[in-house]
Amino acid sequence: MLSAEKRLGFELLATDGSARLGRITTRHGVIDTPVFMPVGTLASVKGLTTYQLKSLSTQHSAVSTESAPQVILNNTYHLMLRPGVDLIERLGGVHKFMSWDRAVLSDSGGFQVFSLAAIRKIREEGVEFGSHIDGSPHFLSPERSVEIQTRMGVDIAMAFDECPPYGLSRADVEKSVALTDRWARRSLAARSGGSALFGIVQGGVYSDLRKWSAQEISSLDFDGIAIGGLSVGEPKDSMLETMGLTAPLLPSDRPRYVMGVGTPEDLLEGVAAGVDMFDCVMPTRNARNGSLFTSRGKIAIKNARFAADESPLDPICSCVTCRTVSRAYLRHLYVNDEIAAMVYNTIHNVWFYLDLMRKVRQSIASKSFGSFRDSFLSRMESE
Amino acid sequence: MLSAEKRLGFELLATDGSARLGRITTRHGVIDTPVFMPVGTLASVKGLTTYQLKSLSTQHSAVSTESAPQVILNNTYHLMLRPGVDLIERLGGVHKFMSWDRAVLSDSGGFQVFSLAAIRKIREEGVEFGSHIDGSPHFLSPERSVEIQTRMGVDIAMAFDECPPYGLSRADVEKSVALTDRWARRSLAARSGGSALFGIVQGGVYSDLRKWSAQEISSLDFDGIAIGGLSVGEPKDSMLETMGLTAPLLPSDRPRYVMGVGTPEDLLEGVAAGVDMFDCVMPTRNARNGSLFTSRGKIAIKNARFAADESPLDPICSCVTCRTVSRAYLRHLYVNDEIAAMVYNTIHNVWFYLDLMRKVRQSIASKSFGSFRDSFLSRMESE
Repeated sequence: MLSAEKRLGFELLATDGSARLGRITTRHGVIDTPVFMPVGTLASVKGLTTYQLKSLSTQHSAVSTESAPQVILNNTYHLMLRPGVDLIERLGGVHKFMSWDRAVLSDSGGFQVFSLAAIRKIREEGVEFGSHIDGSPHFLSPERSVEIQTRMGVDIAMAFDECPPYGLSRADVEKSVALTDRWARRSLAARSGGSALFGIVQGGVYSDLRKWSAQEISSLDFDGIAIGGLSVGEPKDSMLETMGLTAPLLPSDRPRYVMGVGTPEDLLEGVAAGVDMFDCVMPTRNARNGSLFTSRGKIAIKNARFAADESPLDPICSCVTCRTVSRAYLRHLYVNDEIAAMVYNTIHNVWFYLDLMRKVRQSIASKSFGSFRDSFLSRMESE
Repeated sequence: MLSAEKRLGFELLATDGSARLGRITTRHGVIDTPVFMPVGTLASVKGLTTYQLKSLSTQHSAVSTESAPQVILNNTYHLMLRPGVDLIERLGGVHKFMSWDRAVLSDSGGFQVFSLAAIRKIREEGVEFGSHIDGSPHFLSPERSVEIQTRMGVDIAMAFDECPPYGLSRADVEKSVALTDRWARRSLAARSGGSALFGIVQGGVYSDLRKWSAQEISSLDFDGIAIGGLSVGEPKDSMLETMGLTAPLLPSDRPRYVMGVGTPEDLLEGVAAGVDMFDCVMPTRNARNGSLFTSRGKIAIKNARFAADESPLDPICSCVTCRTVSRAYLRHLYVNDEIAAMVYNTIHNVWFYLDLMRKVRQSIASKSFGSFRDSFLSRMESE
């Protein structure tokens, strides 16, 4: 349990090389790390009821509960537009709203403001933007973002940052990183109530800027530190290189979180670099597109070669989808646009990510992360 | 258990006026009647995984299992086109295909051939038609329909009938009813394997034709008798009148099934007339359109008056939706086109129908069906 005066607890339980086994304590239970956080954009992990999400690991009695999701991510940008923070607060906060009693982390809205909205003006004070839905004017600043996240009642809020696209000059990224740094201090000053607050390191693919940002953000009294601005268009190698060089610069006594990354392979790279937390829309979005993760690599379920395939999607997977229906049935549902296709696929892909992280945690505990990673990666390439 | 030589068992356990409490025994378990059968068009009850469907009543520990679905309906027309009977048979039948271990009833394809497909030619032999998907040519006849249903492995198959639209002259309906009668005899002659076979009474809204058809079909060795050709455009009063006058003409020692009907009120009318089985797309289709059944009448969840409504959809409902989330959350999901809206709504509407029938069965057992029905109908009108 978290003591009343603390917003967040973090214990480092074991290490294996740079990989870390840890435990975060929140007001809504513990989070075993390394952890993958399913994305619940509009207070809903797309395709699943909250009940399904909670019982992912208990829908089959033979399966342990260790792959149950302990934390999800909500998007501040989306929720501030629909249904709005006033309504969520009035309804008792995001947990009550979506009937979720475990931890919630929200992003700051920064990423979506810079990627989805029509930007009206970026000023020192904050960002004026137009909603991507109806163009209506809105404003986000460090103070406003932290206020919204706090009023939604999330367990972990994120500092408001500028998230520059890939391809900017070093000079432009340097200006951006300095703004993010000033916004980080203002975010921290605005922290109130019970939500923990994480700072965000930016700096694009420029190692000296990442280093500077990591030092600055780490020097502040954040409850955890995130690496932002990855998976924004840069080459995969640059992403992995930046993640690999930035993670070790972060303090070891606080959780480290890489935002918006990535593939199963990326997650293993991140863990190897000492990252504790990940989120990504990939498992849920791919599920809706029929792109499914298996222990032998990704498959496109619409492929005609699965039409009469009686085998489970992934023979070594324990999710409800793999334990109850065949590839042939999943293909039938997918090619006929049945809603259940999205549900079955989402159950599997989310389970795949959660179960991968469970195995990662086990391997760190038994000091065998390196061999687990090698074995996983070689299987993924074999189909 | 059903003995090896029997295709179907039926016991009449109690009556209350014309209302009947019964039990059908199939190769896949018992069916307590009166029963509502959710429609699983393409071997999927739209919006739900089979696992969810099976555990509708067990997803909350406080709830009894008596509202669990014991039988679903599959559409022969849809399944013969996608994925086709050859594939379903090769994959072990519809039960294995969709991982459903309880009873399945299939329709004969007749209704969809006459309502969805492009008809090429109706002959004494059968119907040539074009698929509504790609126009490809197909053929259905009594023999072919029964063969497909048998090869899919359903527990209850339906005779192939002609289902005329509302508005035909008496002379045209008379011709049609005579064709359906000849097709019924051929369907029966084609019966083989373990699937039970029900005959279908037609006759439009013409009481003398209904009477003639009921006598003819009832005189044949069907395992149960259905009333078809309702809810095809006729006024509600004609539908209820035809159902009410036809049901008592059917033999009391076999199950009576009214096809494609209807609203909760219609189901109560049917039970009052002595009907045992119902199916309808209404609960699932309405769910996807945000039209939700409650004990106080239907509501459109998109309505702005629900935006901040913290109460459950139906305060006296025990489904997972009503026990876990608010009207405000359901409206939020619906207006934002979240997949979970369709899942939550479908869980509720299907549960509403199943639970209504559970209460109907209880009321017949306690000889209080009349007062239950009056009380239900007066509540439905009160909001």
